[in-house]
Amino acid sequence: MEGNGDTRDFKALRRAATKLSLLTDDIRSRMLADMADAFERNIGRIRQANDEDMAAAKADGIGDALLHRLRLDEAKLAGAIEGVRTVASLACPVGRVRERRLLDEGLVLEKVTYPIGVIGMIFEARPDALIQIVSLAIKSANGIILKGGREAMRTNAMLVRIIQETLDGAPFLMLLESHDDVDAMLRMEGDVDLIIPRGSNAFVRYVMDHTHIPVMGHADGICSVYVDRSADIGLAVKVATDSKVQYPAACNAAETILVHCDVAQRVLPLLKASLDGYGVLIHADERSMAILGDVDGVVPALEDDFHTEYLSLEVALKVVDSLDEAIAHIACHGSHHTDAIITKDEEARRRFFDEVDSADVFCNCSTRFADGFRFGLGAEVGISTSKLHARGPVGLDGLTTTKWLLIGSGQTVAEYSGPSARRFIHEDLPL
Amino acid sequence: MEGNGDTRDFKALRRAATKLSLLTDDIRSRMLADMADAFERNIGRIRQANDEDMAAAKADGIGDALLHRLRLDEAKLAGAIEGVRTVASLACPVGRVRERRLLDEGLVLEKVTYPIGVIGMIFEARPDALIQIVSLAIKSANGIILKGGREAMRTNAMLVRIIQETLDGAPFLMLLESHDDVDAMLRMEGDVDLIIPRGSNAFVRYVMDHTHIPVMGHADGICSVYVDRSADIGLAVKVATDSKVQYPAACNAAETILVHCDVAQRVLPLLKASLDGYGVLIHADERSMAILGDVDGVVPALEDDFHTEYLSLEVALKVVDSLDEAIAHIACHGSHHTDAIITKDEEARRRFFDEVDSADVFCNCSTRFADGFRFGLGAEVGISTSKLHARGPVGLDGLTTTKWLLIGSGQTVAEYSGPSARRFIHEDLPL
Repeated sequence: MEGNGDTRDFKALRRAATKLSLLTDDIRSRMLADMADAFERNIGRIRQANDEDMAAAKADGIGDALLHRLRLDEAKLAGAIEGVRTVASLACPVGRVRERRLLDEGLVLEKVTYPIGVIGMIFEARPDALIQIVSLAIKSANGIILKGGREAMRTNAMLVRIIQETLDGAPFLMLLESHDDVDAMLRMEGDVDLIIPRGSNAFVRYVMDHTHIPVMGHADGICSVYVDRSADIGLAVKVATDSKVQYPAACNAAETILVHCDVAQRVLPLLKASLDGYGVLIHADERSMAILGDVDGVVPALEDDFHTEYLSLEVALKVVDSLDEAIAHIACHGSHHTDAIITKDEEARRRFFDEVDSADVFCNCSTRFADGFRFGLGAEVGISTSKLHARGPVGLDGLTTTKWLLIGSGQTVAEYSGPSARRFIHEDLPL
Repeated sequence: MEGNGDTRDFKALRRAATKLSLLTDDIRSRMLADMADAFERNIGRIRQANDEDMAAAKADGIGDALLHRLRLDEAKLAGAIEGVRTVASLACPVGRVRERRLLDEGLVLEKVTYPIGVIGMIFEARPDALIQIVSLAIKSANGIILKGGREAMRTNAMLVRIIQETLDGAPFLMLLESHDDVDAMLRMEGDVDLIIPRGSNAFVRYVMDHTHIPVMGHADGICSVYVDRSADIGLAVKVATDSKVQYPAACNAAETILVHCDVAQRVLPLLKASLDGYGVLIHADERSMAILGDVDGVVPALEDDFHTEYLSLEVALKVVDSLDEAIAHIACHGSHHTDAIITKDEEARRRFFDEVDSADVFCNCSTRFADGFRFGLGAEVGISTSKLHARGPVGLDGLTTTKWLLIGSGQTVAEYSGPSARRFIHEDLPL
């Protein structure tokens, strides 16, 4: 067993990542299967390490929500292990030919997917995230540097130890332990190709401000559901409710509901009744307030409410005069994550899709569908609100780059220049 | 005619970009045709503005290379105008469905290309670059902020004036005039989506250090040609020479030639004779020096030579013991731009392609083919050595992002959760 000795030997990590990339997909998928088996054989050790983390967290007076995320019980572990096997079964994301073009006789260009190289992933105190991230890294043949939440330290170390025991030391994998290690990583331009920080906007900004390595930000979400004048009212209430309550702590949960004035009288009382069933507090603008009245579960919205990511059972509610006003509201207050329109009007849907500048734009379904698993990506490292590279749920594809490969037979550019230049054929070939 | 009044009204620019994106591709292509016609009608005004720039540059004692780039004569202008028409004729890059998946009955997901939004482009003193960049921006339906080289100020202003006269003020286009304007743009996070700085590495780094807007860096190039032991010697000499001399000031020109020791005795004298024909100065390592002797046109290489982008008729030459040494040399000294192998050995080619981590990796053809036009992209805004988003020559595709569009019929995530969860179908549909 090699291990990766110095946890800060980034150059050795890159060499190991290159070796990983030169294996076949079959071998990498076999590694994932072995890893899944090893987790199953070692449930006892994992549970014990997690119990220690839980005990320490309780002793530190950590809140219930975080404890819930930290806890890796047998059900969660079984789900994570099933996830490893799902990732193993996905199509290989590297070596895919995206374009193939005949430039001239005997001169063929291909654009082919390759691993990015070495990815630094900073994530929160959910040890099952580590399992998912390592699976995606192995499948996409990237080296991976992990920094998990401090609270999950013992669980993460045990998971990594089991992976190392199973995969010949797993030298393509590095677990950082301290903030100093993270700062060292942020300085490793040239050795680390991409940083993916999960966490608050402030944290993502800190990372961006302290590195020249590209950062793929996985942002918080201020998502909206807009109920159009032509919406099916029952459908609107059902979908808006699900968007808010199905898992309010998620970044794709709705924080704002906008309702067209023509249907507000009908929608709002039904929506209020539906949200009441889950104990949702409504921050209502003046016009919604006028319809709903000054009743339990409704408070007047302040301007800040429309910029707030509650991540809890609270929602901002506003009556708008038009589709245009809804689109303008989302442009001004949203976070370009996920926004939905509820409408039967095809023209309204088309305008909403074209004009709302968000990673995910939905019609007649819950914002909570914005998720790598639900999208059929197999798994995700997070949701990107950046417009570059990967946007929306980021699965294996987002962990690849491309190379242009050109095979010739002695061609020079001089032959294609000047008065008697050869002309290019530029014919797209079948993929 | 509207114009865009305040040259720093970035919000008005975004509104205009959105309007541009809502037009059809036919209309945008018609705009390009009108623009090409207008340039042809106004050749006199353009030439006069360019003459003034040239006179001012000469008075300032500007060097010949820059004067050459600055000069927009009738031939260059005709080429640029033809380029506008070529861009107009390309397939529309937005609205393309990249993925389409049935998540469940009545729940269809699409990944569709959209314009990025507003792009800030900082480019050098070549006024024909402005014409190409504006063409690409209009075709891809992006708003564009331009800052050209100071020396081309009058020519650029005239080109923009003609575009504004032709395209109802072209409010999706903004020409910045001062460095203060550039600094203002770098602060406009949220209003500007992407900055593309062309120029030196130091300049690109300055831009990255002074903005939170994503930057797509178009880097300098230290490109290598490796002559393998199994190379066709004549082909190797021809391709290596073209890679160096066809346009030495380009970023895709070769700066280093690596030769396998088994063929060095045969290759080096022929290579020297070929390069002599163009007056190339060879910086030879010790082993090449021993073969070539201490003759005219050959000087001993210093370590720095292998890290130098000459951009002129100079080249570094090194004898290597193996393919592995060549790959390692390129990893250590190259700039991940364009590298070529000359070989008849399919296994050597495959290893070079898989292990050389560059945007463009070629076999048996010149590094100078790394270019958007030669690749069949129609045109390019530059060559990216970043691994994220666009890599290699960046054409229209690199100016697009994607949205995930999901159309449902009232689905909630609650239905797909828990013990009696519906299962997703996740069937890829034809594009």
